[in-house]
Amino acid sequence: MNIKLTLEYEGTRYCGWQIQPNGESIQAALERAVSTFLGASTRITGSGRTDAGVHALGQVANFFTDKEYDRYRIVRGLNALTPPDITIRDVEIVADSFDARRDGRSRIYEYQVLNRSTPSPFYLNRAWHVHEPLDVRRMQAAISCLLGEHDFSSFRAAGCEAAHPVRKVYNTSLEQRRDMLIYTIEATAFLRHMVRNIVGTLVEVGRGLRTAREFHDLLEARDRNQAGPTAPPHGLYLVEVKY
Amino acid sequence: MNIKLTLEYEGTRYCGWQIQPNGESIQAALERAVSTFLGASTRITGSGRTDAGVHALGQVANFFTDKEYDRYRIVRGLNALTPPDITIRDVEIVADSFDARRDGRSRIYEYQVLNRSTPSPFYLNRAWHVHEPLDVRRMQAAISCLLGEHDFSSFRAAGCEAAHPVRKVYNTSLEQRRDMLIYTIEATAFLRHMVRNIVGTLVEVGRGLRTAREFHDLLEARDRNQAGPTAPPHGLYLVEVKY
Repeated sequence: MNIKLTLEYEGTRYCGWQIQPNGESIQAALERAVSTFLGASTRITGSGRTDAGVHALGQVANFFTDKEYDRYRIVRGLNALTPPDITIRDVEIVADSFDARRDGRSRIYEYQVLNRSTPSPFYLNRAWHVHEPLDVRRMQAAISCLLGEHDFSSFRAAGCEAAHPVRKVYNTSLEQRRDMLIYTIEATAFLRHMVRNIVGTLVEVGRGLRTAREFHDLLEARDRNQAGPTAPPHGLYLVEVKY
Repeated sequence: MNIKLTLEYEGTRYCGWQIQPNGESIQAALERAVSTFLGASTRITGSGRTDAGVHALGQVANFFTDKEYDRYRIVRGLNALTPPDITIRDVEIVADSFDARRDGRSRIYEYQVLNRSTPSPFYLNRAWHVHEPLDVRRMQAAISCLLGEHDFSSFRAAGCEAAHPVRKVYNTSLEQRRDMLIYTIEATAFLRHMVRNIVGTLVEVGRGLRTAREFHDLLEARDRNQAGPTAPPHGLYLVEVKY
């Protein structure tokens, strides 16, 4: 049986998705739970990595087992074995050919910016606190250029292991809910720190340090040195992986 | 000068608002910050107590000082001195006669119930997780009886120090936002554990263990022994105090 998991995590305590020599990873915590549940050492495949401190509302992973299980029993069993900051939302039994990483057609990320003068006790590790007033319309005008297929070299971090810098963006939007700005982007896949680099630069647009036109030009320039700072990881959420 | 503070806190780490011999309180953390800021030991008056683990979005407190300060300087100065789970949202300079506790005309509380099969990593200490399906309409029918002036003995905890059990409820509503049920109640003041006892009983209505009619009868009965369990503190938020 090939088991597909949909999971949520609060990434604050973790060094990210992927197993690392130092520090606890989501993948390691999950593999321990799955291995205990199945009574056999088991590897799991994730849809992709998330950085240290990044959260997930809909990360997807899969693993194989010889045994037969009811899916509700897997949900309950795994949730009893994972730490409270990792929750299995859903389990599906899928075709043997399914691979959480290879088969992902697109990923949706959200980035939360708390835009008010004082920090919030409720969003300490959950949103980027920006106290300077941000011009949301200006930011909305800037992001329109991201839609479609582009070379995202300007928003690609050093050390990115992707084969090439071209990605296709299906959706990009910025929504305001009271003090919170929520930036959403859906793309085939993402370069290293791509969302955080977009948001870091976008906040400079919102603060009036760049124009929307300059943001467009930056995308065209394909030069990371012209972009803004990388937004901190704790505002970023992997929301959904589409297959 | 009489200084009115409006503050937020994430109550998880605290033994509640009021100074206690054992455990850290919000009031103690705040008095230390204010005393350091003013350079003189200072007592603060809160609008009312909150229990251990209860949160606030709009707690109000006041203190007196002989010195003259700009209000923005007080906000910045105090936020630099309070721990990150306590934030001063606003400072007002008010008439000397203002007393945060005595002058409160009404208080608004919210209680968050996360109603889904699995717990959420993001609401561990922020909402009551109820995994049984809840009938929201049935719960909405039940709460209508709370509106107006009533003897709330049925929802009053043992050890409540109030002089009498009669309170006037101005608003009571239950709203559903995806998986989250948000119960809101505004009243002159509240008896000990009153909101948590209402919510604990209301969840029994939602689970089908009581009817809306029985909830009405319970209010009439003025008997705590007939009510449901006390909902846990971590779903409760003091939202606003009106003056």
